[in-house]
Amino acid sequence: MTAPNTIYQELISHIRKAAMLGSCGAVLGWDRETYMPKGGNEHRANQLSLLAGVAHEWSTLPRIGELLEQLDDSELRDAEDSDTAANIREIRRTYERSRKLPQRLVEEISRVTTLAQHHWAVARSGSDFNAFAPWLKQIIALKREEAATVGYADGGEPYDALLDEYEPGANSADVATVFAALREELVPLLDAVKGASRQPDVSILSRSFPITRQADFGRTAAAAIGFDFDKGRLDITTHPFCSGFGPGDCRLTTRYDEHFFSSAFFGTLHESGHGMYEQGLPADAFGTPLGSAVSLGIHESQSRMWENLVGRSRAFWNHFYPKAQTLFPEALGTTSPDDFHFAINAVTPSFIRVEADEVTYNLHIMLRFDLERDLISGRLQTADVPEAWNSRFTSDFGITPRNDAEGCLQDVHWSAGLLGYFPTYALGNMYAAQFFEAAEEHIGDLQTQLANGDFQPLLRWLREHIHHHGQRFTASRLVEVVTGKPLSDQPLTRQLNDRFRPLYGV
Amino acid sequence: MTAPNTIYQELISHIRKAAMLGSCGAVLGWDRETYMPKGGNEHRANQLSLLAGVAHEWSTLPRIGELLEQLDDSELRDAEDSDTAANIREIRRTYERSRKLPQRLVEEISRVTTLAQHHWAVARSGSDFNAFAPWLKQIIALKREEAATVGYADGGEPYDALLDEYEPGANSADVATVFAALREELVPLLDAVKGASRQPDVSILSRSFPITRQADFGRTAAAAIGFDFDKGRLDITTHPFCSGFGPGDCRLTTRYDEHFFSSAFFGTLHESGHGMYEQGLPADAFGTPLGSAVSLGIHESQSRMWENLVGRSRAFWNHFYPKAQTLFPEALGTTSPDDFHFAINAVTPSFIRVEADEVTYNLHIMLRFDLERDLISGRLQTADVPEAWNSRFTSDFGITPRNDAEGCLQDVHWSAGLLGYFPTYALGNMYAAQFFEAAEEHIGDLQTQLANGDFQPLLRWLREHIHHHGQRFTASRLVEVVTGKPLSDQPLTRQLNDRFRPLYGV
Repeated sequence: MTAPNTIYQELISHIRKAAMLGSCGAVLGWDRETYMPKGGNEHRANQLSLLAGVAHEWSTLPRIGELLEQLDDSELRDAEDSDTAANIREIRRTYERSRKLPQRLVEEISRVTTLAQHHWAVARSGSDFNAFAPWLKQIIALKREEAATVGYADGGEPYDALLDEYEPGANSADVATVFAALREELVPLLDAVKGASRQPDVSILSRSFPITRQADFGRTAAAAIGFDFDKGRLDITTHPFCSGFGPGDCRLTTRYDEHFFSSAFFGTLHESGHGMYEQGLPADAFGTPLGSAVSLGIHESQSRMWENLVGRSRAFWNHFYPKAQTLFPEALGTTSPDDFHFAINAVTPSFIRVEADEVTYNLHIMLRFDLERDLISGRLQTADVPEAWNSRFTSDFGITPRNDAEGCLQDVHWSAGLLGYFPTYALGNMYAAQFFEAAEEHIGDLQTQLANGDFQPLLRWLREHIHHHGQRFTASRLVEVVTGKPLSDQPLTRQLNDRFRPLYGV
Repeated sequence: MTAPNTIYQELISHIRKAAMLGSCGAVLGWDRETYMPKGGNEHRANQLSLLAGVAHEWSTLPRIGELLEQLDDSELRDAEDSDTAANIREIRRTYERSRKLPQRLVEEISRVTTLAQHHWAVARSGSDFNAFAPWLKQIIALKREEAATVGYADGGEPYDALLDEYEPGANSADVATVFAALREELVPLLDAVKGASRQPDVSILSRSFPITRQADFGRTAAAAIGFDFDKGRLDITTHPFCSGFGPGDCRLTTRYDEHFFSSAFFGTLHESGHGMYEQGLPADAFGTPLGSAVSLGIHESQSRMWENLVGRSRAFWNHFYPKAQTLFPEALGTTSPDDFHFAINAVTPSFIRVEADEVTYNLHIMLRFDLERDLISGRLQTADVPEAWNSRFTSDFGITPRNDAEGCLQDVHWSAGLLGYFPTYALGNMYAAQFFEAAEEHIGDLQTQLANGDFQPLLRWLREHIHHHGQRFTASRLVEVVTGKPLSDQPLTRQLNDRFRPLYGV
């Protein structure tokens, strides 16, 4: 009989090889969004399709199933949080999910969503939901089939199966509960802020901020908070993202608007947060669950923490505002740090999620979460999406989209088949706040450190308590291990109230 | 019995898949040389090693051998230059070469050369041949083993087997013959030029040429001669190269030196020549021999033609010099076009091949060719390389390298195992001149077109007669088909004499 460790090593070598190939695809994906000439599109699609196909083939080899089975009763699984037990648990989870999906369905989803993204872009530019509706209908049907094939726990619902791909272990009912609790706090906060007599002068942020100086400033801030530019880069793209290629190489992207300061600067902090998580994963575990991020929600907790809880704090600007004034003397020379800080924390209901403030952002997510659940359960038909969207939007935000481009056509996700993805953004906000409170408790005088530009204690803490573990814990367990409590809306609502009520004097 | 066409299609699908994977590796290789942060080196090596290994596995599948065998007596091979016959011929050639090499030898060469390149870089920077000698010795032994394993024609020599990898169908004796003829003409030309009373003022080229303007100028010229920037890019690197990723995407690279005009400008023309060849290969034949470049020598003929025969012609600067004066008023405002043209055509013996002029360049190559043949045949021992190099250099150039960094350590090729590669550079110069003469005959008033900035007739001619064919013809046959004559040193020596003798008044 083969020793369990030998079986385990073979298992690891299979998934590491698939991950290595996947990381080649990441390089090609990054290049497509940053430097690829437009003529390269078709060949790039063929290259990526080949890599994705082979990586899928390698990660669903029947041999992996045999090895997992041989490890079923192995002592390598005894200690729940051990390296081997965690790796086996997560390899099994993704393997079983992949194996359940027939190749036909995977290819059909890939084919339809590739076409649908093009039709979505056309429909959005013409604000014509009807042009996208047949594609959305097909995608919903395919995702319902996927959910039925993958399955979900007793007492759950089909949407759980989709959510589970992005936030393993989460389920719709729990998410709905925590979202409802969060909503209870956000609505009165938003009402208070909207009715406040003090309002920020947001025109500050629309003055002229020369792009080369924005790039310098963003890079300086990213390096200061701890993104390692010897092991990464920052480039320009249309839709910013972060891509970790593997140990020693993580790529951030951003976009610059001369007449809007926040877009590139907070975008860079956001992607740096993702990037520092990638840079903090243990390099020697590359390609295994222990070397991988826990979930999209946990990933987002890192980006949102640096973007918002650090980057929009008064303390942060105590350190950085003099630098900003030096770099942008015409825009900021006579603006006080308090006015600037108020402007970057403006709360205003608006139509577009990606431009939303921290308070309304979560309401945008809840709207999508509820519509997605209804679409997947069959309670909502695709033809009725615009009406459902607009009536919910009006009731939540007090404003009504003037067209579908401002409403249900605004996001690429559905056309790309990414249903179950949106909730991870709001989960990320809550994880971020809960982690941040724990960090403040552990580290001590965190705000003073931020005010002094000393970001290393916070990063060290995140490295040790979160990054370093890879997928040792599931997301919900990680929250408990790190903070001593299950996920709650309270840390986020506390922090939002603490920041916004004094600013608005409400 | 399976229809030949079915067998052929399966064969094509196998090699196309391997080529597609190879093209993914090209993207990763380009990124490594342009944008990759230094921390990404180790992971990138692992990624490239995986891709290379799998591409090799796919292109040496026993199934390919079976399919080739089934096509042995097929009518698809009847018409010598047909699509199918050419593809089968070239697939067989590369397949047989690859299959002959045992995996052990391939991996050993890869391992030793990876290490050797590092040791070469250290040895060169310390100008310490002894530090590199043991590595060179190992590499020579491995390449001799490779040559013996691959084999060569009766009456040939081991070096033929190495040369054949880069210039299929070429053999050492023929190369030596044409090199000897070329040498007969170059030596008196060089002597005449060295003794001329008229000499160019090369200091013109070392004035200040602001880098952003050099970049604009290079890009403008590349686009003007026909490089399609919708299907390619130009980026910065340390050791410039061109990499065709596949249809619609070809990457050029260059480097800028504010105080040396020629480096980036002629480098950009050179890489554009390579790039236009890549862009001219038939897109629908991607991944097959008919969609691939003939040989390194033919590839080099395209780069050297645009760099030298076009780019250093008086006609070219009739069109571009006013633009150059506008862009670089301080450097060129008071310099006449004739003085500038003389400067960019300066002939001076110098130690470093990559900085050599068109006359001495070929002598650099002949020196390496002769030493390589002697090393591979065993007539020369590695320990004796510096002495052999220096004495030959002194006799050919009239100057003696002051150290090995200026001598036998200057090029990376040997440390990378690229023996048999150098001759393709000089073959490229000869092919270029012979093609260019044919083009002048066919097109008519080519020099007037160049003087008017009309580069399309030449490019169209190259597309039709060379690029479009891919590997339909071998290099030597292509020369005959295109020019009606076998390869000869005469077109090159004619053109060099015609350009340099009037300039130097000799």
